[in-house]
Amino acid sequence: MGDKKFGIVIHGGAGTILKSKMTPEKEAEYRQKLGESLQVGYDIVEKGGAAIDATQAAVKVMEDSPLFNAGKGAVFTHEGLNEQDACIMDGKTLNSGAVAGVRRIKNPIELARLVMDKSEHILLSGEGAEAFAQMHGIEFAEAEYFYTEHRWKQLRAAKYQEKVTKADYSQLDHSDDKHGTVGAVALDRQGNLAAATSSGGMTNKKFGRLGDSPIVGAGNYANNRTCAVSGTGHGEYFITAVVSYDVSALMEYKGLSLQQAANMVIYEKLAGLGGTGGLIAIDRDGNVAMPFNTEGMYRGNLLPGQKPVIEIFKE
Amino acid sequence: MGDKKFGIVIHGGAGTILKSKMTPEKEAEYRQKLGESLQVGYDIVEKGGAAIDATQAAVKVMEDSPLFNAGKGAVFTHEGLNEQDACIMDGKTLNSGAVAGVRRIKNPIELARLVMDKSEHILLSGEGAEAFAQMHGIEFAEAEYFYTEHRWKQLRAAKYQEKVTKADYSQLDHSDDKHGTVGAVALDRQGNLAAATSSGGMTNKKFGRLGDSPIVGAGNYANNRTCAVSGTGHGEYFITAVVSYDVSALMEYKGLSLQQAANMVIYEKLAGLGGTGGLIAIDRDGNVAMPFNTEGMYRGNLLPGQKPVIEIFKE
Repeated sequence: MGDKKFGIVIHGGAGTILKSKMTPEKEAEYRQKLGESLQVGYDIVEKGGAAIDATQAAVKVMEDSPLFNAGKGAVFTHEGLNEQDACIMDGKTLNSGAVAGVRRIKNPIELARLVMDKSEHILLSGEGAEAFAQMHGIEFAEAEYFYTEHRWKQLRAAKYQEKVTKADYSQLDHSDDKHGTVGAVALDRQGNLAAATSSGGMTNKKFGRLGDSPIVGAGNYANNRTCAVSGTGHGEYFITAVVSYDVSALMEYKGLSLQQAANMVIYEKLAGLGGTGGLIAIDRDGNVAMPFNTEGMYRGNLLPGQKPVIEIFKE
Repeated sequence: MGDKKFGIVIHGGAGTILKSKMTPEKEAEYRQKLGESLQVGYDIVEKGGAAIDATQAAVKVMEDSPLFNAGKGAVFTHEGLNEQDACIMDGKTLNSGAVAGVRRIKNPIELARLVMDKSEHILLSGEGAEAFAQMHGIEFAEAEYFYTEHRWKQLRAAKYQEKVTKADYSQLDHSDDKHGTVGAVALDRQGNLAAATSSGGMTNKKFGRLGDSPIVGAGNYANNRTCAVSGTGHGEYFITAVVSYDVSALMEYKGLSLQQAANMVIYEKLAGLGGTGGLIAIDRDGNVAMPFNTEGMYRGNLLPGQKPVIEIFKE
């Protein structure tokens, strides 16, 4: 322990988050929950715990809140279901676990961790992933748990819009509700990095679409040689740009700093493709980056000897 | 047209392919089918067609053969089903399409192409992907089509082994049947690169496990700035090492040649993690690489003015 650097960074999704549309009460709710997530994760690494446990705990706090598009607050698919994705990765061992398209898991990030710890596989999907969860006694939640009036209204609005415009609304809407994802990255006192990401997917999504969140290197990546990254945004572009691994590759192969690499990926490479979103990242020296090219990103970090940073809009 | 460089490279899976266990008849069958796949793809680029069409056509030839673990020859899951993955990517536009865990699609690579062309999404999974296929009139095949005695015996043997050893045989077996995947990469006369990969998965696999084949950057990647890559091997390691994108990143960020980058990824990075497999790659100058760290890899390439290269074992 001692003077080793450590810390945690979180996000609660990026998108069209405008100050003009946010009430002071709502903003206070978000800030309070982001602060709680940060503190829960920070306490773990502050006491000498593992970065991977810190990221998992921080993500769980956001999954348990209806405010974010993950866990309890997950958006509805076209069929009125919730299909969730999650991924967790340990930068020391490069072990990872992920689940895609699970419908009845209370905390997808805990199932991802179980896949990492108890399975030789990395990515389990759908009913198979739920069978694995059942075998290991993971907590299930029924449809009522995931029902929130706000998300249901979003689905109804999306379907109405689709009927009126005859277009596929899941492809038109670029509001924050589409981009919602939560994530955490951490550095512990042992010098280990980790990343965790959980997503409720896309309102009105169809055809078993999988996004970037469960994909190692796209939405989530950690490697002690470089950095830990969690992304949030229009998943297809994050897959195409291999966003999370690209930050690591730019550091390792081109010698860029974390901030330079993260900025290049979000402002040049992702934006160059027309992709919107952001990422959070931390490197092995405790440097932090939180770039995004949308109106806002729910985000924060907590480092030793510093006050918690919690931000929502462009500063 | 004219003197522009072009060409095609294919693989039919890597693994414990030993000359001592291969009959001359079986070897001739493999060589014949690999040659047919090469020729079909080559003819397309030779006539000025698109690299993406060439890779799709070459993969389809292997999917239609019972020899390879993709399409007709796909292995059985624990439940006695076939669950297939495929991905295709256009290096010019960086557009891609992929499907994961589809059970009744005759040619998964054609569905992946349809996802690329007709959907705003990249990766569709399971029944959702099949609903999308139905909407677009893709050819379905029933269980009997995918039944091959060879694959069924493999499943029975795997289950028996599992019972005897009380271990998870899908995790123990590293034979070529586990690693079977097919893929093609091509360069066309317009200077465009493309990659296509299709996999029947892992004998006796459970829990909706997804491998690297449907994941952009892991099992399949193409980018006109650098190269086109298709991988085959122990999927979890290919996901962890972000194998296909890593070849591209080493070229773009470190200035390595295609051969240097491909060798580093397979012989150093993948092998360093304990991962087995290989890849095929072509760059925009028509250079070809086909490294693998297993006993063998079904592979070949065809370039203008040269005889077809078709190899199976270490040379």
